[in-house]
Amino acid sequence: MLLPHLREELCKQHLELPRQGLVTWTSGNISVLDDESGLMVIKPSGLMFEELTPESMVVLDLDGKVVEGKYKPSSDTATHAYIYRHMPHVRSIIHTHSAYATAWAANNREIPCILTAMADEFGGPIPCGGFALIGGEEIGKEVVKTLTGHRSPAVILKNHGVFTIGESIKKALKAAVMCEDVAKTVHLAYQLGNPEKLEQQDIDKLYDRYTHVYGQK
Amino acid sequence: MLLPHLREELCKQHLELPRQGLVTWTSGNISVLDDESGLMVIKPSGLMFEELTPESMVVLDLDGKVVEGKYKPSSDTATHAYIYRHMPHVRSIIHTHSAYATAWAANNREIPCILTAMADEFGGPIPCGGFALIGGEEIGKEVVKTLTGHRSPAVILKNHGVFTIGESIKKALKAAVMCEDVAKTVHLAYQLGNPEKLEQQDIDKLYDRYTHVYGQK
Amino acid sequence: MLLPHLREELCKQHLELPRQGLVTWTSGNISVLDDESGLMVIKPSGLMFEELTPESMVVLDLDGKVVEGKYKPSSDTATHAYIYRHMPHVRSIIHTHSAYATAWAANNREIPCILTAMADEFGGPIPCGGFALIGGEEIGKEVVKTLTGHRSPAVILKNHGVFTIGESIKKALKAAVMCEDVAKTVHLAYQLGNPEKLEQQDIDKLYDRYTHVYGQK
Amino acid sequence: MLLPHLREELCKQHLELPRQGLVTWTSGNISVLDDESGLMVIKPSGLMFEELTPESMVVLDLDGKVVEGKYKPSSDTATHAYIYRHMPHVRSIIHTHSAYATAWAANNREIPCILTAMADEFGGPIPCGGFALIGGEEIGKEVVKTLTGHRSPAVILKNHGVFTIGESIKKALKAAVMCEDVAKTVHLAYQLGNPEKLEQQDIDKLYDRYTHVYGQK
Repeated sequence: MLLPHLREELCKQHLELPRQGLVTWTSGNISVLDDESGLMVIKPSGLMFEELTPESMVVLDLDGKVVEGKYKPSSDTATHAYIYRHMPHVRSIIHTHSAYATAWAANNREIPCILTAMADEFGGPIPCGGFALIGGEEIGKEVVKTLTGHRSPAVILKNHGVFTIGESIKKALKAAVMCEDVAKTVHLAYQLGNPEKLEQQDIDKLYDRYTHVYGQK
Repeated sequence: MLLPHLREELCKQHLELPRQGLVTWTSGNISVLDDESGLMVIKPSGLMFEELTPESMVVLDLDGKVVEGKYKPSSDTATHAYIYRHMPHVRSIIHTHSAYATAWAANNREIPCILTAMADEFGGPIPCGGFALIGGEEIGKEVVKTLTGHRSPAVILKNHGVFTIGESIKKALKAAVMCEDVAKTVHLAYQLGNPEKLEQQDIDKLYDRYTHVYGQK
Repeated sequence: MLLPHLREELCKQHLELPRQGLVTWTSGNISVLDDESGLMVIKPSGLMFEELTPESMVVLDLDGKVVEGKYKPSSDTATHAYIYRHMPHVRSIIHTHSAYATAWAANNREIPCILTAMADEFGGPIPCGGFALIGGEEIGKEVVKTLTGHRSPAVILKNHGVFTIGESIKKALKAAVMCEDVAKTVHLAYQLGNPEKLEQQDIDKLYDRYTHVYGQK
Repeated sequence: MLLPHLREELCKQHLELPRQGLVTWTSGNISVLDDESGLMVIKPSGLMFEELTPESMVVLDLDGKVVEGKYKPSSDTATHAYIYRHMPHVRSIIHTHSAYATAWAANNREIPCILTAMADEFGGPIPCGGFALIGGEEIGKEVVKTLTGHRSPAVILKNHGVFTIGESIKKALKAAVMCEDVAKTVHLAYQLGNPEKLEQQDIDKLYDRYTHVYGQK
């Protein structure tokens, strides 16, 4: 079996999605890219999270052709492959319909940067891309177009949901978790009034510090 | 004891209702129809979910007459029986008062289709039927009238709650879970503004793909 | 030790309060009245729920005098005693600050009856009593005054929280759980619009059926 | 290893932050001051809560110089040290971005005192301090300036989050838990209308009673 360690890690991290309250039933998926082979591994389509096993994960090349797998891959496979082809620093992609972030997306509104925690993790607002139908490359194009030149590892897509990217599954997962967290807090803040946005120079300082000073080496 | 496997499955799936946050105390119920005998099995009235056993489930014919059971059947039995008699493809029915969906129902408003996840699972908005009193066939009539000619496996009823139907308990359960999930996200979206509805042609494409391409064979 | 079985049951049911999300830290309490001795048993003041033991419960007479107990009784003891003295059918009282119900109380607004589930359990709106300071009989007087002549086993008090009564701990607990459940759904409904109230004749029919037909004998 | 008991207690109490729903991913931290040595112990920067061990905690003097620790200390260390230096009765400090409290902070609004539970624990509204950047003493100065002369053990900071103080970790934790609890209830109350604030004389009586009568000796 190809890429047994990545399959195992991918299977394990999928369980974080329901545990963190980001997905419902079978929606949502994670993929990971293997540097050496250039192959991606992704969730099979329509399986329940608790049914997933390392063996059920599907291995594909970046044209979306299945290399190994007994199940059909996620419906979002073409999107993931497109992103990997066009954003070479990305090693993992996560897709969810997490409720608060998707509520912003349903309004075609970026999530405004009114929290230091947003400046830290996203370096500004979380941008909103346009509507695109599933199945082909349209969603991938929206993700790449919207994230290009942006610091944010998360994007929301109109009337749809969230995509996050990262140099590892853990980083993409952090972006997905923090995206829903700030989407909720910012939502609550807008129910209370019209909160002031952070100033760009403060966002820059916060993002720089979080990127270079926060955490361990 | 009649239908031991269905009783066991029905008992087990009832525990999903509190686990998924769809019910409170003793409210909510599931029934399932046995193809061969034409009998339905349903939750007993007013028992706590954790008290349920396969033996406590009640078996009835579709006129609502108890065939086997040591407990009184659910107060919603007449509704379930009416739906089975008038919608022959239905094999399972679920009733809940899940909070977000019921909030739409209290406003006598359908849940508008502003999410791709809604187009996928419900093929459009989740319709709202009129108010009806419990006890007789009135609720069943509202459910059948509202769902007939509609793609949605879920209906909300004015000032009351949710009914979902399916070809299996699992499918009816999926509809109940997804109904509350989208009811919440759409609720949040309407707190932020006036989100655009999906266009009918996009809904049609999404529904068609989800029905025929998504998942495993 | 007096009333060992009631102490044990009371201790056990207190754990339901955090499990059902009705209390935070040490707030909230349950008491129970022993028919034979006329004594009440109540939570000790300011202990964490997970610290509670049957032995830590406090036994008092209905003048609020401690009969047996190594801890000081709940700050709400005078309220509980007053209610038992003036509502002779009550055998258990529960107090919480559960969030949604308390939000209605903070607005000095009854929770309007817009759900069949409210008509079932509360027989109408959940009434709101006036503001009263803790320590003496003022809160008890508000509870008794507001509930007298009302079907509802739950009352909310202005700027404060919830009291529920019942013929048993389980019935008072059901009222506390359902009170928060409908308070949430009705809150969500009012965020979406201006929902229609149930008609009195429908409320009466629902309440009558739920009281006399629902459940097992 | 210095201060093994405080390290262990601090590690254990950190797990309460995710358990109580106050933190997401690695955000949030607790410190504790050792009376005898005058040293503080704090969470290491950027570690996941489930990774924390007593050994991973960092010991510093109140100038923020690391005395013992294999990890870099929390990014908020200078803030904690400043507070300890200027508020000599404080023995523990907690920082979170808990959602409802932070939503008030994003609006630069104090949380108004409309609940008896707020009068009890906070002795009035929860005040909101100004915006300050992380890294130096600015945040600590805002906390001290805002809390000085105030009964509240909790402060929210504009566009940022929550700081609480206490004579012990448990008391600071209680303030953090209750701050989010009342922030939620007050938020919900303001969605329903324009609730009346408690009168100052009632707040004073409630606070006095809760401080001197409530709980065990």
